[in-house]
Amino acid sequence: MTGHVVALCGGVGGAKLAHGLELALQPTELTIIVNTGDDFQHLGLSIAPDLDSVVYALAGLSDPDRGWGRRDETWTFMKALKGLGGESWFQLGDGDLALHVERSWRLAHGVSLSEVTAHLCRALAIATRVLPMSDDPVRTRVLTAEGWLDFQEYFVHRQCQPAVREFMFAGADRARAQPEALAALQRRDLRAIIMCPSNPFVSIEPILAVPGFRAAMGQSHAPVVAVTPIIGGKAVRGPAAKMMTELGLEVSAAAVARRYADIIRGFVIDQADPLPESLQGVRFFSAATLMNSTEDRLRLAHAVLQVADTLSATHP
Amino acid sequence: MTGHVVALCGGVGGAKLAHGLELALQPTELTIIVNTGDDFQHLGLSIAPDLDSVVYALAGLSDPDRGWGRRDETWTFMKALKGLGGESWFQLGDGDLALHVERSWRLAHGVSLSEVTAHLCRALAIATRVLPMSDDPVRTRVLTAEGWLDFQEYFVHRQCQPAVREFMFAGADRARAQPEALAALQRRDLRAIIMCPSNPFVSIEPILAVPGFRAAMGQSHAPVVAVTPIIGGKAVRGPAAKMMTELGLEVSAAAVARRYADIIRGFVIDQADPLPESLQGVRFFSAATLMNSTEDRLRLAHAVLQVADTLSATHP
Repeated sequence: MTGHVVALCGGVGGAKLAHGLELALQPTELTIIVNTGDDFQHLGLSIAPDLDSVVYALAGLSDPDRGWGRRDETWTFMKALKGLGGESWFQLGDGDLALHVERSWRLAHGVSLSEVTAHLCRALAIATRVLPMSDDPVRTRVLTAEGWLDFQEYFVHRQCQPAVREFMFAGADRARAQPEALAALQRRDLRAIIMCPSNPFVSIEPILAVPGFRAAMGQSHAPVVAVTPIIGGKAVRGPAAKMMTELGLEVSAAAVARRYADIIRGFVIDQADPLPESLQGVRFFSAATLMNSTEDRLRLAHAVLQVADTLSATHP
Repeated sequence: MTGHVVALCGGVGGAKLAHGLELALQPTELTIIVNTGDDFQHLGLSIAPDLDSVVYALAGLSDPDRGWGRRDETWTFMKALKGLGGESWFQLGDGDLALHVERSWRLAHGVSLSEVTAHLCRALAIATRVLPMSDDPVRTRVLTAEGWLDFQEYFVHRQCQPAVREFMFAGADRARAQPEALAALQRRDLRAIIMCPSNPFVSIEPILAVPGFRAAMGQSHAPVVAVTPIIGGKAVRGPAAKMMTELGLEVSAAAVARRYADIIRGFVIDQADPLPESLQGVRFFSAATLMNSTEDRLRLAHAVLQVADTLSATHP
């Protein structure tokens, strides 16, 4: 099938499938909408971790072992910063800093996050459209037993230790959906909307909280397909499983599917897991969702596109 | 002799003698006033090259070979920045960046350059007082055959190639002399005011252009002693000799002394040069002014202090 594909993502797993989709499709066939809820200001720099994960993945610059940041990284800056008594809880690699510095001064000069991202993509020869969910600031905050914490304070500084009770996406209600992102979801030739295997609470739901996206997805004739971030009752990476436990949810792919039930038509679980009981309006599919190599990414992308095409064929 | 010593400096030669004086004196006996005319904004960062040269010299962090920046430096940031199409004419080492980032975000939060410098010195265990000439921006500009250029544009980007005609220190007339720096020059127990072997046009004269310093120096009972940046008709480092030629001045230690004649009582030329003809109100002294080692720095500091003490003894 042909048509345009929109992927929603955040975090490392999301970036991996976004990369797989980029390999599976022509640049004109794909728009990637990225969570900006965990963006923050640090040491005067504007840091956008999820955009960076996607950009590095698509540019072939991701570190293959660490799972975040740039490959061939050095750490002289952090060492020197510690020597100056600077804040060292957030690791900034020397090469990674180039992206933060370039972004920060352009934003400070009034250039939008979309334009900065487009500039960085051009410089790195990324032809696929990578868009922040909004050019307005949306900041994920986490209610814990210790009160509300800014996302990076919770995620990096406190290493997700405080138990979570609730999330808020400060500014989301006033944020304007990135216009091209919204337009992509409203395309008549839309083939699929893919919710990547990202953390539901802090990667996908901040995107859905920006006014316009959820409605556009609901009104689209194209199937919305989500890929599980949970395999065998565990998160592939990050705090998703811990969060589910703390929120009183079952830690399973099915529980993620239930959370998305009002918006998805297909849900891809890992081949290692049994197919869940039926869920009103949602069909389950099975695939190899673990992405340890570029081939895995491409294979999962093809599988997810096939799921979407199957759904379109059976319920056009 | 005892008493307080004030050193005026900018650039690498200045930083070296400042370091020698720091080794020769107790921390409470020395105040170093540093040129900020070549400070600038680059990639959203507030860069203060002369302050950094002094801080690195006093912290033992200067690169011994390159002559500027930090030792044990890496360059991953610059490489990555080039990959992003960023401006790469101004070299920023990975470790050096830590200082720029720390300074920049503090300045952006309204902390003064003096306070930021004091903070950095504390972090690096520098007990001697290092002060910017002013907390207000003063920006050296260079009139060339191509018109006015910002200092770093001329100095780094254009590598001092355009012939100079004139200098201006934009903002100097409205700048407030750093209060502790001015107070140091007004101390009753002042032993000496040392003008380090720095470029007269772009390191020392910007300091003298800030209202208050020149008057305080003129009113002090302490001798003002300058050290030549010119040896054998050549600048030890940097564009001083080229500038003198372009301005129609003789390239000699004596010409520098004449330029300072209204403010100095002693002038130290290099031992390799002949003593110049007499100059009204200025006594010439000879010393080993080339500083290739820490020992050289300390030896020159002692020599310059002895010059000051000799001048005090003969003309108290």
